Amino acid sequence: MDETPPGAPAATETSAVPAAVVDLLGVLAYGELTAFIRMAVDCDLAPTLGLKTSMGRLATTDFEHYSLLVEHMRERGIDPEAAMAPFVAPIAVYHERTRPKGWLEGLVKGYVGEGIARDFYREMTAFVDADTREVMQTALDDRSEADFVVQIVRDTIRTDPRAAGPLALWGRRLLGEALSQAQAVAVDRDAMSALLVGGGVDLGEIGRMFTRLTDNHTARMHRMGLEA
Amino acid sequence: MDETPPGAPAATETSAVPAAVVDLLGVLAYGELTAFIRMAVDCDLAPTLGLKTSMGRLATTDFEHYSLLVEHMRERGIDPEAAMAPFVAPIAVYHERTRPKGWLEGLVKGYVGEGIARDFYREMTAFVDADTREVMQTALDDRSEADFVVQIVRDTIRTDPRAAGPLALWGRRLLGEALSQAQAVAVDRDAMSALLVGGGVDLGEIGRMFTRLTDNHTARMHRMGLEA
Repeated sequence: MDETPPGAPAATETSAVPAAVVDLLGVLAYGELTAFIRMAVDCDLAPTLGLKTSMGRLATTDFEHYSLLVEHMRERGIDPEAAMAPFVAPIAVYHERTRPKGWLEGLVKGYVGEGIARDFYREMTAFVDADTREVMQTALDDRSEADFVVQIVRDTIRTDPRAAGPLALWGRRLLGEALSQAQAVAVDRDAMSALLVGGGVDLGEIGRMFTRLTDNHTARMHRMGLEA
Repeated sequence: MDETPPGAPAATETSAVPAAVVDLLGVLAYGELTAFIRMAVDCDLAPTLGLKTSMGRLATTDFEHYSLLVEHMRERGIDPEAAMAPFVAPIAVYHERTRPKGWLEGLVKGYVGEGIARDFYREMTAFVDADTREVMQTALDDRSEADFVVQIVRDTIRTDPRAAGPLALWGRRLLGEALSQAQAVAVDRDAMSALLVGGGVDLGEIGRMFTRLTDNHTARMHRMGLEA
């Protein structure tokens, strides 16, 4: 498949599915696929078999969500590759700018990334049809695998308090890069922005949505014992 | 977990499970875990989303087999990390010596590796208890995901016949390195060798087993349109 460059035309509206939902499914699916690949790659760096197992489980769960989304798209007559294509570049840029130096940064990235994705899934379920909501809910339901990260980061900081500063910075960079790419996508993909505005969401509400995402990120950082 | 160096003591015999079966479960599990990681890493190189999906599916299936084996070990009172430890080094050496240059070599490695693993599973089921056999059979049953590789390699060679020679060499190297590490393991792990001999298998039969593995490898190479 050729990768569609940024600025490609909006996804084609099918009889059943608005272009905005096609976009949403595409970005979620490609996000899960790359999360799977990155986590599996980072898992290669993990120093113990136990960590490799936990990270591998996290990775395969992402792949399962990806498969669910792709299957849902096919059932609805949506071409998954076309739907994902507009998001290949921004998500690649995100991962390129947040390459972990070592397994611990990889773990924190996994935890932070899963959290942001989860928030995004949850915020978006209000604007989609019942079938799509069900698929998204399935992904939301079984995402507790990342919780093992909290204890590992806490233990690391207790043993080596100097690790906390760099990890806190790392968390801020992860959120910053994620929001920066989200903004690029919002500018580029009119349909997806219109999903919110067309769904009766005004700019104030979009602002509050970003505040919620940021607040939840802060809470997750604190849970790991890190400043946000 | 500390990685046990080669020459570590044989796995502890538990009340229920002979050391040889512990070894077998350990090598199968660690083989699946590393196959998962390597395939996921190689999947990152794949040029299309379709290929990434197929390779990702292959990778997650390996992880599922790994999880099944680990669960089976835990149920039998075997420490999975201890069981896998003796095989970390030889399997790491195998992967180190067979790093694919590009996604096509990665695919062929996946197909060849799955095939050899499958043969090994099948040969070994005769020597284990019924419960272990059932777990191994489950892994054997759902391993058709690699078949997509055959068509891709055939198409590649038709388009670019000069690709066939290097890929044939690559296949030979994969088998050679796999057998070389298998031999190192057999020398190092008396218990596992004894599983065969103790199971009434004489040296002639072991020779025929290697012949079968090699013949099956040759058949797989031919299926891809490659000389073995």
